[in-house]
Amino acid sequence: MNFSKLAEDITRGDRKAAARLISLVEDEEEGYVDAMKLLYERARGVPVLGITGPPGVGKSTIVLEIAKRMRAQGMKLGIVAVDPTSPITGGAILGDRIRMTELFADRDIFIRSMGSRGGSGGLSSQAGSVVRILDALGCDAVIVETVGAGQTQVDIMGMADTIVVVTMPSTGDEVQSIKAGLLEIADVYVVNKCDLTGAMRTLSDIRSMLDLVEDWHGWKPPVLQTNAREGKGIDELLGSIQKHEAFASGSEHLASRKKAQLRRELQELVSNEVTRRIFENIGTEELDEILNQMLDRSSSPYSEAERITADVVRKKRATAR
Amino acid sequence: MNFSKLAEDITRGDRKAAARLISLVEDEEEGYVDAMKLLYERARGVPVLGITGPPGVGKSTIVLEIAKRMRAQGMKLGIVAVDPTSPITGGAILGDRIRMTELFADRDIFIRSMGSRGGSGGLSSQAGSVVRILDALGCDAVIVETVGAGQTQVDIMGMADTIVVVTMPSTGDEVQSIKAGLLEIADVYVVNKCDLTGAMRTLSDIRSMLDLVEDWHGWKPPVLQTNAREGKGIDELLGSIQKHEAFASGSEHLASRKKAQLRRELQELVSNEVTRRIFENIGTEELDEILNQMLDRSSSPYSEAERITADVVRKKRATAR
Repeated sequence: MNFSKLAEDITRGDRKAAARLISLVEDEEEGYVDAMKLLYERARGVPVLGITGPPGVGKSTIVLEIAKRMRAQGMKLGIVAVDPTSPITGGAILGDRIRMTELFADRDIFIRSMGSRGGSGGLSSQAGSVVRILDALGCDAVIVETVGAGQTQVDIMGMADTIVVVTMPSTGDEVQSIKAGLLEIADVYVVNKCDLTGAMRTLSDIRSMLDLVEDWHGWKPPVLQTNAREGKGIDELLGSIQKHEAFASGSEHLASRKKAQLRRELQELVSNEVTRRIFENIGTEELDEILNQMLDRSSSPYSEAERITADVVRKKRATAR
Repeated sequence: MNFSKLAEDITRGDRKAAARLISLVEDEEEGYVDAMKLLYERARGVPVLGITGPPGVGKSTIVLEIAKRMRAQGMKLGIVAVDPTSPITGGAILGDRIRMTELFADRDIFIRSMGSRGGSGGLSSQAGSVVRILDALGCDAVIVETVGAGQTQVDIMGMADTIVVVTMPSTGDEVQSIKAGLLEIADVYVVNKCDLTGAMRTLSDIRSMLDLVEDWHGWKPPVLQTNAREGKGIDELLGSIQKHEAFASGSEHLASRKKAQLRRELQELVSNEVTRRIFENIGTEELDEILNQMLDRSSSPYSEAERITADVVRKKRATAR
């Protein structure tokens, strides 16, 4: 495959070429890296909006409402929905959501769903690559929505310029799930479905949690109410997002967040590629023999991993001397 | 720390020593590997029962009921609850479940919760290590419960001798989530909460799905009903589990499943350790410089990953010649 042509096509706005490269990235197809290197140089650094929160709070509806308003302003838009807990990929998740269909028809919106297909754990770097592809495609903004919960979700949000954490009125559980890792990363809080009982309580719970933090380094996250299904509070949300973007652009905090994300990406890329090559070098027969020795306990995964690792990295040191 | 003493203490049945080594495994503390190598040699290959399924179907209640019956038979028991979507570890998840408290008081049950603490993706190998520690501690059986969903969940189940997939009567959604990856791995199906409406429909839905498979290699998974909260159907479930254990012991299928799991563990261990050493060799200052170049786009994660990888693995080839 001609990867520089593929990259070329994408920068000319070819949606099919973008979809194709995204698939190559997800499959970790050899050579996709060549296309990505070309695109990275040319990327303009598209603004990335991250939307995250526990399942069922209405993140997708918020994304839909934001997307509609950005489209009304004539912006070309990319939407990436990442679900680290799902093996389903390629539009299936979003495809299920009937409310999203009005966006699918729009040629100036590029929508893509991603899941953890192989379990190789490369979702952070893959999501990073997808955002850059949409950047090169000419998107004026990219919205990254992460569904589910956990560390991968927090990691993926690292690429966003502004992180919106969404929750809903609760009996306590949802605020709990926010506490677990999401509390620290939000630039803007949203309590969606604010027509439900308990909204005021949830709002004040979050505000009290925020009051415990002593130093905000110039930005204390606002806590907003929305009822996305009826379009309520979305304009205020967009206002807060824009305010944060203006504040954060060029800020130390944002640079260090992006650096941390780049570091994770680099680590993932190195880890995946080195491991792939190591096991390629071992070969099927030898590996099978090693596994049989582990099964009959004459060897262990620990000793074999140690031996293989020493083989690779010790030799590096020896050569370096 | 004296790791051979720690291993020794564990094989003498010291619960505190076991808890301590599990923490070292979770933190990937240097040296834990030495203790694990010793324990692997001595492990007897404890029977592992895997319980998995979508959130909210009552897996923990089933685990509780099974555990009570195993204890009544005088068995010493290990229970490991793994939630790949949670950063919470160390007993917190299970600790929240009041129904489990009756087990916590029992000195012959060792309970541990695990989450994806660092996001380094080593949960499969970590869960494998924990099972081996409980084996060495003298447990007669280990129950591994995975909460959440996704590929990691499926991977972790690979270490079980018998995999029970739990679901509940549904309007369609839960059967959907079973389809996504869990369908293929079950040795026994359970429809829990069978007092709810739709139970018959769900049972027959699962049975029809199973009828589509042509060759079961000697074991067609039974589909059972339980109402775990009232202890209904648990004896039948245990019967099916024992029947499967008798069938599977020494079977080709089980050996290849365990081999696949060992392979994943080996890959995880190698990947984590090699990556750790590589970035150690790079050093903080050089890494910072690389990240700054990426930020100003004079370099990219792709080209840097390629360079670092080539540095390590190409040199291995050169030395090997």
